[in-house]
Amino acid sequence: MRGNNKKSSTKNTAPVAFQGDPGAFSQQAIRQFLGDAAQILPCQRFEQVFRALEADQASAAAIPIENTLHGSVHENFDHLLNFDFAIAAETNVRIVHNLIAIPGTTFGKVKRVYSHPVALNQCLDFFAANPQVEREPFYDTAGSVKMIVEQGLKDAGAIASALAAEIYGARILKRSIEDDRRNYTRFFLLHKRGTPAPPLASPPSREHKTTIVFTTRNIPGALFRALSAFALRDLNLAKIESRPLRGKPWEYLFYLDLIGDVSEVRLQKAIGHLEELADFMRVLGSYPAVGG
Amino acid sequence: MRGNNKKSSTKNTAPVAFQGDPGAFSQQAIRQFLGDAAQILPCQRFEQVFRALEADQASAAAIPIENTLHGSVHENFDHLLNFDFAIAAETNVRIVHNLIAIPGTTFGKVKRVYSHPVALNQCLDFFAANPQVEREPFYDTAGSVKMIVEQGLKDAGAIASALAAEIYGARILKRSIEDDRRNYTRFFLLHKRGTPAPPLASPPSREHKTTIVFTTRNIPGALFRALSAFALRDLNLAKIESRPLRGKPWEYLFYLDLIGDVSEVRLQKAIGHLEELADFMRVLGSYPAVGG
Repeated sequence: MRGNNKKSSTKNTAPVAFQGDPGAFSQQAIRQFLGDAAQILPCQRFEQVFRALEADQASAAAIPIENTLHGSVHENFDHLLNFDFAIAAETNVRIVHNLIAIPGTTFGKVKRVYSHPVALNQCLDFFAANPQVEREPFYDTAGSVKMIVEQGLKDAGAIASALAAEIYGARILKRSIEDDRRNYTRFFLLHKRGTPAPPLASPPSREHKTTIVFTTRNIPGALFRALSAFALRDLNLAKIESRPLRGKPWEYLFYLDLIGDVSEVRLQKAIGHLEELADFMRVLGSYPAVGG
Repeated sequence: MRGNNKKSSTKNTAPVAFQGDPGAFSQQAIRQFLGDAAQILPCQRFEQVFRALEADQASAAAIPIENTLHGSVHENFDHLLNFDFAIAAETNVRIVHNLIAIPGTTFGKVKRVYSHPVALNQCLDFFAANPQVEREPFYDTAGSVKMIVEQGLKDAGAIASALAAEIYGARILKRSIEDDRRNYTRFFLLHKRGTPAPPLASPPSREHKTTIVFTTRNIPGALFRALSAFALRDLNLAKIESRPLRGKPWEYLFYLDLIGDVSEVRLQKAIGHLEELADFMRVLGSYPAVGG
């Protein structure tokens, strides 16, 4: 009986919330985290993703946290502070844009290509080399694939993930037409504190990261003193970022990724030390690291 | 003769390059920097903005560098490193979305609203409160105003800046329909080193900021040691951000905004000290600060 319970709790059937349409890069992140069979709950806004997890409509949530071209998704850092969830894992998704069409359409037939303007703008070399193809802005990358399939458009294409082509039964005409291949988005997998972390598809890395947030007052050297808690214990940082605190000129929030697991004594001592030095401190999560 | 030359060099008539259509928020930034009469050179990509300045097709360039919701524009930090221009000034533009229509159209007539999907997604409360209005993705915020004016669409609206309404002769039906008013973008005004900085429209602040970039090796405490150059001289930081160096695991670029002018002796000594501690260091600019 006990064994059965354990089994059913590791096979998690409640869906994983994400922002976007099915086939969005966030769903690709969910597959990397939990495997292809993971159930999904698409949401329109990031805040709805967090609310779905809070209301137990979802067992976990996948959120983008930073992109190599566009920087940190500050909105999601704000939600991480407002909702007290734990980070179970991180993953990097390479943003690969594919030219997709309905079965039977060849590249020569494509007269216009639908996608989100950000994706269209990341494929300018493709459009420069193919001036016969018109760019058509659409609401969403994956949604543009869904639309050309539903409407059976034979002279149109869409730019989206390979996953979107798979989900909507479309074909990839040209792979990886993005201008810059160094376009990666880092995602966090979140779960409620006190609930078991969702079982990950890949064996977790032995190296861990710990993400913390803290604030300091406006005194020169405040950050320097705060970092002493880690530097004097030879703990390594993987990321640091400051954000001004609204309504409090020259006071800052700092986001820090440390190498190490929060259960390590050395890290616990460093965090205790930081609590003395900072006005506010919270551990947002400690999770298996993927390469930097 | 000498006096005349001086006068003509301060009245700068070469245009200022920016990415986007006329009426984009970047043009609003140019007005804040240089006044309403500044000539503009719209470009399709950020890289073209930098190339226009390099080729003297523009006398200056305005680029977004960070947004309070979406984080740093890393692509532009990369261009700042690749092109060696100086930062002449910074400004913050509040991203205000307005519902805009052609003259004669009242709100009750508006059946669909065009804009960039990012802007449409930042006005979800407006669309929830007005379910009779359809959202129509378009290539650009300002471009959607241009389109409804050119096509004389009487039952359509567009979401864009007040400047776009002004430029294309349209009317604002509802001001500030964005969900989150804490949406600001920080812009830099760039010019070529060795050329005079463009004359600013507002008297510059007495407080200065200095933006530097440096790299450190992967040794615990490397950032801590680097920051000692500033902390031990009581110099204050306004921003810090790390980025992984591509192809060099666990090595980082750091972007730092310091309070102070690079001509101050204390700052020069700190920068000299940092040069000893860092593998690479460059001052990207020193410019009048606007409030944090």
